[in-house]
Amino acid sequence: MAHQRRGEDTRAHILAAAADCFTRAGYDATSVAEICAQAGVSKGAFYHHFPGKQAAFMALFEHWLAGVDVPFQAARGAGESVPERLFGLAGMVQHVFESAAGQIPMFIEFWRQAAKDPQVWQATIEPYRRYRMAFAELIAAGVAEGSLRPVDPDMVAQVLVSLGVGLLLQGVLDPAGADWGRTAEGAIAMLLEGLGKQPV
Amino acid sequence: MAHQRRGEDTRAHILAAAADCFTRAGYDATSVAEICAQAGVSKGAFYHHFPGKQAAFMALFEHWLAGVDVPFQAARGAGESVPERLFGLAGMVQHVFESAAGQIPMFIEFWRQAAKDPQVWQATIEPYRRYRMAFAELIAAGVAEGSLRPVDPDMVAQVLVSLGVGLLLQGVLDPAGADWGRTAEGAIAMLLEGLGKQPV
Repeated sequence: MAHQRRGEDTRAHILAAAADCFTRAGYDATSVAEICAQAGVSKGAFYHHFPGKQAAFMALFEHWLAGVDVPFQAARGAGESVPERLFGLAGMVQHVFESAAGQIPMFIEFWRQAAKDPQVWQATIEPYRRYRMAFAELIAAGVAEGSLRPVDPDMVAQVLVSLGVGLLLQGVLDPAGADWGRTAEGAIAMLLEGLGKQPV
Repeated sequence: MAHQRRGEDTRAHILAAAADCFTRAGYDATSVAEICAQAGVSKGAFYHHFPGKQAAFMALFEHWLAGVDVPFQAARGAGESVPERLFGLAGMVQHVFESAAGQIPMFIEFWRQAAKDPQVWQATIEPYRRYRMAFAELIAAGVAEGSLRPVDPDMVAQVLVSLGVGLLLQGVLDPAGADWGRTAEGAIAMLLEGLGKQPV
């Protein structure tokens, strides 16, 4: 048990060092030796946890990906309607900006590698597809409960994910350019005016 | 005249070579010597046109930026209402995807440098601000002509640019993930349902 705990600590420690190196120098310019030096571990310890540099890179990505569903879980309050849950998601945007800001150089490395490597590309598009599926389920639930008109859930999900990605990118690049949290809530309000049940 | 023409050709030739090197090897790993070798010009010719590597990089960015207003000009048909012009812009999305696809590695280099260098960062956020201003003018014109409700043009512009950025990013990363041109038109239709004048 203590041994396993130490192993997990070492793995997390190596990943933090790898993220540091990739962010500072870029993926291509980082060697396993440099990650080991940064983490203060032997190459043996590195290769015990990861077959190579790309595996560490993908593990960082999967770690980030594991957080994808968190806001959807958090927005699932008991007895809340789908429009209320959509507003709940919009209200989290400011928090997402703050946690994403420090990770941008790492994201840029993911995209850079994705443009060169089909395996990384596949992993990079995965979260967008998962978000679109999660939003499509939410919209379908709104149609089923009668709080939304009978719209195409996939199309609305594509629009919502596009909006979220665009807000996130601009909010991180240009935090002073607008009140992005307020914009997110305004956007949901605008869309719900179009999506909501009209008074009969 | 012939001399000036040759100078412009050389400048464009150096920029194309620089874009090639930055895309392939990244900005940091590219030297002026490599750009010159790729372009088949002397260092003297390079420094005649650009004070250094960063100036060539920024010139590439400004070249891209010069195209920012083109879709807005193209969507300005005589006598068209603002909702019609918004649909016209949505109809161009597919074309924008196709022209952007090959430039993604270069964009990623812009973002990568922007995260390190305040001058590049300033230039990188500039097109988003310009797009937001252009959309805000368009929305204000719609309110003035009576085709849109009295909404906050800045807020609506932030939403529209976020939507465009998110559609573009997903469409380029994951062209097979959805029919992005159709999604763009559906998004404008949804927003106009919320923004449009309601029947009295």
